[in-house]
Amino acid sequence: MIFPILFTFFLLLSSSNAAVQDFCVADLAAPEGPAGFSCKKPASVKVNDFVFSGLGIAGNTSNIIKAAVTPAFAAQFPGVNGLGISIARLDLAVGGVVPFHTHPGASEVLIVAEGTICAGFVASDNTPYLQTLEKGDIMVFPQGLLHFQVNGGEAPALAFASFGSASPGLQILDFALFKNDLATQLITQTTFLDAAQIKKLKGALGGTN
Amino acid sequence: MIFPILFTFFLLLSSSNAAVQDFCVADLAAPEGPAGFSCKKPASVKVNDFVFSGLGIAGNTSNIIKAAVTPAFAAQFPGVNGLGISIARLDLAVGGVVPFHTHPGASEVLIVAEGTICAGFVASDNTPYLQTLEKGDIMVFPQGLLHFQVNGGEAPALAFASFGSASPGLQILDFALFKNDLATQLITQTTFLDAAQIKKLKGALGGTN
Amino acid sequence: MIFPILFTFFLLLSSSNAAVQDFCVADLAAPEGPAGFSCKKPASVKVNDFVFSGLGIAGNTSNIIKAAVTPAFAAQFPGVNGLGISIARLDLAVGGVVPFHTHPGASEVLIVAEGTICAGFVASDNTPYLQTLEKGDIMVFPQGLLHFQVNGGEAPALAFASFGSASPGLQILDFALFKNDLATQLITQTTFLDAAQIKKLKGALGGTN
Amino acid sequence: MIFPILFTFFLLLSSSNAAVQDFCVADLAAPEGPAGFSCKKPASVKVNDFVFSGLGIAGNTSNIIKAAVTPAFAAQFPGVNGLGISIARLDLAVGGVVPFHTHPGASEVLIVAEGTICAGFVASDNTPYLQTLEKGDIMVFPQGLLHFQVNGGEAPALAFASFGSASPGLQILDFALFKNDLATQLITQTTFLDAAQIKKLKGALGGTN
Amino acid sequence: MIFPILFTFFLLLSSSNAAVQDFCVADLAAPEGPAGFSCKKPASVKVNDFVFSGLGIAGNTSNIIKAAVTPAFAAQFPGVNGLGISIARLDLAVGGVVPFHTHPGASEVLIVAEGTICAGFVASDNTPYLQTLEKGDIMVFPQGLLHFQVNGGEAPALAFASFGSASPGLQILDFALFKNDLATQLITQTTFLDAAQIKKLKGALGGTN
Amino acid sequence: MIFPILFTFFLLLSSSNAAVQDFCVADLAAPEGPAGFSCKKPASVKVNDFVFSGLGIAGNTSNIIKAAVTPAFAAQFPGVNGLGISIARLDLAVGGVVPFHTHPGASEVLIVAEGTICAGFVASDNTPYLQTLEKGDIMVFPQGLLHFQVNGGEAPALAFASFGSASPGLQILDFALFKNDLATQLITQTTFLDAAQIKKLKGALGGTN
Repeated sequence: MIFPILFTFFLLLSSSNAAVQDFCVADLAAPEGPAGFSCKKPASVKVNDFVFSGLGIAGNTSNIIKAAVTPAFAAQFPGVNGLGISIARLDLAVGGVVPFHTHPGASEVLIVAEGTICAGFVASDNTPYLQTLEKGDIMVFPQGLLHFQVNGGEAPALAFASFGSASPGLQILDFALFKNDLATQLITQTTFLDAAQIKKLKGALGGTN
Repeated sequence: MIFPILFTFFLLLSSSNAAVQDFCVADLAAPEGPAGFSCKKPASVKVNDFVFSGLGIAGNTSNIIKAAVTPAFAAQFPGVNGLGISIARLDLAVGGVVPFHTHPGASEVLIVAEGTICAGFVASDNTPYLQTLEKGDIMVFPQGLLHFQVNGGEAPALAFASFGSASPGLQILDFALFKNDLATQLITQTTFLDAAQIKKLKGALGGTN
Repeated sequence: MIFPILFTFFLLLSSSNAAVQDFCVADLAAPEGPAGFSCKKPASVKVNDFVFSGLGIAGNTSNIIKAAVTPAFAAQFPGVNGLGISIARLDLAVGGVVPFHTHPGASEVLIVAEGTICAGFVASDNTPYLQTLEKGDIMVFPQGLLHFQVNGGEAPALAFASFGSASPGLQILDFALFKNDLATQLITQTTFLDAAQIKKLKGALGGTN
Repeated sequence: MIFPILFTFFLLLSSSNAAVQDFCVADLAAPEGPAGFSCKKPASVKVNDFVFSGLGIAGNTSNIIKAAVTPAFAAQFPGVNGLGISIARLDLAVGGVVPFHTHPGASEVLIVAEGTICAGFVASDNTPYLQTLEKGDIMVFPQGLLHFQVNGGEAPALAFASFGSASPGLQILDFALFKNDLATQLITQTTFLDAAQIKKLKGALGGTN
Repeated sequence: MIFPILFTFFLLLSSSNAAVQDFCVADLAAPEGPAGFSCKKPASVKVNDFVFSGLGIAGNTSNIIKAAVTPAFAAQFPGVNGLGISIARLDLAVGGVVPFHTHPGASEVLIVAEGTICAGFVASDNTPYLQTLEKGDIMVFPQGLLHFQVNGGEAPALAFASFGSASPGLQILDFALFKNDLATQLITQTTFLDAAQIKKLKGALGGTN
Repeated sequence: MIFPILFTFFLLLSSSNAAVQDFCVADLAAPEGPAGFSCKKPASVKVNDFVFSGLGIAGNTSNIIKAAVTPAFAAQFPGVNGLGISIARLDLAVGGVVPFHTHPGASEVLIVAEGTICAGFVASDNTPYLQTLEKGDIMVFPQGLLHFQVNGGEAPALAFASFGSASPGLQILDFALFKNDLATQLITQTTFLDAAQIKKLKGALGGTN
C-alpha cells in the first residue's frame, strides 16, 4: 500500500541508468579499440552472451603434440569483453605437450581438472620454476614469461587456464620462429640455432626460407 | 618585433597537437567501448560539453522514499567521458532514504551541503561503518560495498556524491531483488527471505513471479 | 667454442635484471599498499609460491547452505599478488546454494567441473540473467553485480571461479545485512524488509540489535 | 532452527576474507609507494578514517587572492587512499581568485554550492573554455590542463572540487615560476616574460634570484 | 616425418588467435575513444605502421625560439596507438629554447643525442630541479609538471623525448595564456601579470583581447 | 605592495601539498610492491635522482654477440619509479646482435642514433614484421612479443630503447632455454629442438642437464 510511488520515482532514475556500463558485450562487427571490442547495444544483449558451452567439449588431441587448446577469449566469448578475464580449456592426451609459449597480455592460473600435468615457467633471471600438478592443483604463470605444460601421467589430462585479460594473446615459440618466412640465416643469427635444425623445424611446421 | 617567426613556427606544432587527447567528450550516437563512449569530433566540442546545470535543480522527493538522485554521469554529462570522475545530486526530504545500494564501478565521496545525513557502509568482513554527517562533512564509500544514506534531521538534506569513474553504475538492492521477474522461490533460496516478505516487496515495486 | 664470452657478457646484464619485476610474491608480514601486498625478497621465492594445492580438497558442505567456497586469493596463494588474477573452488552438495553476493573488485568467470549449476546475476537496470550450466559450461559475472549459484541437479556439483584480481573481495548479502549489529530499525528503513524478517535472520546468522 | 550451521560454516570463509582489500586506509608513517600510502592494519581502522569534517569550516580568505583551498586528499583524509577519489573545499570572497594552476594527477569536477564563479580551462590547442557558473552548476577540468576560478559575483562563493585520484596534486603557475630561486634570466628565457615583471612577482611571492 | 599433423592442428588455434590484440594500429578515420584511436583491420596492417622515419630529419630551427619539436605520437605514428609509449625529436639551435610546458598525459624521459641541454622541472611544492645534460645523459620529467629545455652550449643540440603514453599531450604555457582570445583583464586576475606584459606577449604570439 | 599576504596564505596550502605525489623516487632498501619500489622520503630527493649519466658511456661489445645493453630502469634510475617509463642504451658493433627476446611488462620504441639496424618482431599470428632502420628511424615492438635487433651495416650502431614501464623486464630466449638446469629432454619435448642442439647451446651458455 505504501509503495506505489516508489515504483514511479525510480523509473526515472532507472532510465538514466540505462547507459551505466555494467558490461560491454563484444560487437565483433563494430570498430575495435585499444581497450577491446565495441559494445553490443544493450537492447540486443542476451544471457547467452554471458554463457559459453564450447569448453565442455574435449579438444581433438589426435595431432603430433597430442594436445588441444580451446580458447574462450573475447573473440569467442563476447561477454568477457572489457571485464579483464577469460579462460581456455586444455586437453592433453597421454604424452601430450603444450610447447613453450607466452601470453603477452595477461598472467595465467592453470587448474588441473583431470590427470597429472608437469608445468613450468622461466623467470627473466633464467630460473626455471617447475612443478608436477595433480588434480585440483593450481599454478600461476606471470604475464609474458615463457612457460609450458606436459602431460606427466599415464592418462589423459584436462585443465582450465584463466587469464587476467579478455584477450591475453598467445605466442607459441616454435611457431613464431619456424612457421613463417623468416630467413634461416636471420634465425641463426638471432637464436644461435644451427641452420640444419631451423630448416628441419621449418619443414615440419610449414615455414619457408 | 622579435616574435613574428615564433607564431609561424608553432602553428605547425599546434596542428599536430590537434589529435592530442586532452579530453573525449562523449558522442552518445557512436560506438561505445569498454573504456567509455566514443569522442565527439574536436571541431564540434563546445564549452557546454564541460558544464552541466542539471544539479542545480532539486530532485522531486514526493515519493515513498522521500528522496531523489540526479546523476551527472557520462551519459548525462558528456564532458566527463574518459576522465575518471562524475557526480550526482542527492535530495532527501525529512525522513528520506536512499536504500542499500552499490556502485560496481567506483568509490564515492559524499559531501553534505545542507542538513544532516546518517550514512553507512558494510565492509566485506560484515563490519558496519556508520556516521551522522553534518553540513560540510564528507564520507567515503569504497568501491562495490553496500551503503545507504538516511536523512537524520528535521529538515531537508542536500548532498553531492562524487565518483572515481565517469560511469560508476548503481545497483539498488531492493530493485535487483524485487523489481523484476526473478522467481520468488529462487529468491528465497538465495537470500533466505520468507516467500511472503518477497511477494510483499515484489508487489510494492512492480516485480512478478 | 665461439660462445664463452657471451656467457660473461650477459652476466652483467642478468644481474641488472635481478630487480626486474616479473612477479611480486606476497610477503604477508610486510606493509600492504593499494596495489597489493609487498613482495617477498627474490632470494626467498620458491616454486611453491606459485603452486597451491588447497583447491584439490573438497570443501565441507555439511552446513545449512550445503556449500563451501575455498579461495585462492593473494592472502592464501601469494604467487598471484600483483598479477591481476585469482581463483576459488566451489562445492555444492545436492540442494547447495551460494547465496546472493558481490565481488567488489573483479569480474568472475565460473566453470562447472561436475554436476549442474543454476547461476544468475542481476544487471543495474534490474534485468536478471539466469542460466542452467552443465559440466564444461562457463558463465561470466560482471564486476560488482549481485549474483548467486545453486546446485540445480541430483548430484553434487563442483565449479571453479576465476577472478580478474588477486584480491577480488566477497560481500555476501545476508551477512552484510544480518550478521552484525546494524539496528533492525535502520535495516528496515534501508531495505524495506519487515522487522520480524530481519530479526529472524539476525537470529540465524548471529547478528544483534 | 535451520540456520545454526550456516553461522559456523561462514566463519571460516570470513576469516579468510580478512585479507580482502575493500579499502586501504593510509598509514602515513609506513612506506609510500607509487600506488599510494601503505594501508593501516585492519584492526585499527575506525569509522573516523572514512569521515572528514575539515571541509565544513570556511577557509580564511583574508589574503591577497581573497580565496582559500582546503584539501581532503589522502594525506589529510586517509580513507580515500587507493580509492581513486578525493575532494577539496574552495572559498572565494568577493573578488577572490584561484589563479591558473594544474592538477598533474587527475581531472576535476567543480560544483558551486554558493555564489557565482567564473571558471575556465585552456586546451592544449590553446582554445579557452570559459563559463560563469551559478549555484548548482558543475564544470569539468580535464587532467593536467591549466585552469582557474574567479568569484564572479557580489557575494562570497563556495565550491567543492572533486578529483579522480586520492592524490591529484596541485601546481600553481605563479608559485612554480616565482616562488623559488629560479634565476630571473632563466625564467625570461623560458617564458618570454620581461625581467622586471619577473622580479616584481618574485618580490611579492618571496622568490629570489 | 612426425610433424605433419602439428601443422594442421595449430591452424585451428591460430585462426582463433586472429582476434588476439597484440597491437592496435590507429585508424585515424574511425571513431576515437578514451583509450585511443580505433584499430586498423588486421589485414591492412603493414610493417610501415610500426616504423616512422620522420624523426631522422632535423626540425627547422629558423624561428624565434631557435627550436623545433617533431612528435611521433599516435596521430603521426599509428603503430604506438594503445601501447602506452611515444617519442618526439627535439632540435635546439645555439640559443634555442623549448619554453615552459607540460604533458598532461604522461611522464617524459629526455635523452641528449648531441650537444648540451639545460633542463629543469618544478615540483608542486615549487622546488626547481635543474641540470645541465651532456650527450648521453637522460632526465625524467614527472607527469603534468612544468618543465623546459634550453640549449646550454655553443653548438646545436639534439635530443629525443620518450613518453609513457601514445598521446601524451603538450600544453605550452605562453600559448595557453597569450595565443588566444582570453581577456587581458582575466589573465591579469589569474596570473598577477601586468596588463602591459600580457598585451606585449599577445601581440607577439597572435593573441587578441 | 599588494602581494605580501598572498605569500603567507599559500604557505599553509603548500605545506599540505607536501604529501602530493608528483613522483616516487625508488628507495631500493624499502619494501617493493606490485606497483614498484617504495618512495624515498621527499626531504632526501635530489636532482640527481632524476638524472642518469650511465647511458652516455658505450657498452662493451667485445663479446660473442658484439653487443651491449645498458638499462636505465627503476633499479638503476630511481627517478622513473612509478612513472611508467624507462630507457636503455644499445650498442651493436659490426656484426652485433641482440638475440630474440621479450619484455613482459612494456612495449618498446627503438630509435637509431648511429648506424643501421635490422630489427623485427613476430606477431602472435606468426607474421614477422622486419625493417632496416637508418639513423633517426624509430620502430615500435608491441608488449610481450618476440623481437631482435641486428647491426645491418658496416659501422658500429647505437640505439636507444624506450619502454612504457619503469620495470619492463627482459627475457632473452636463449638464456631462458639454455642458461639454466632445465633437463635437455624436457626442452626437447617443449621446443622440438634436437637434444644435440640443446646440449651444444647449454654448453656455450653455461647451462646444465
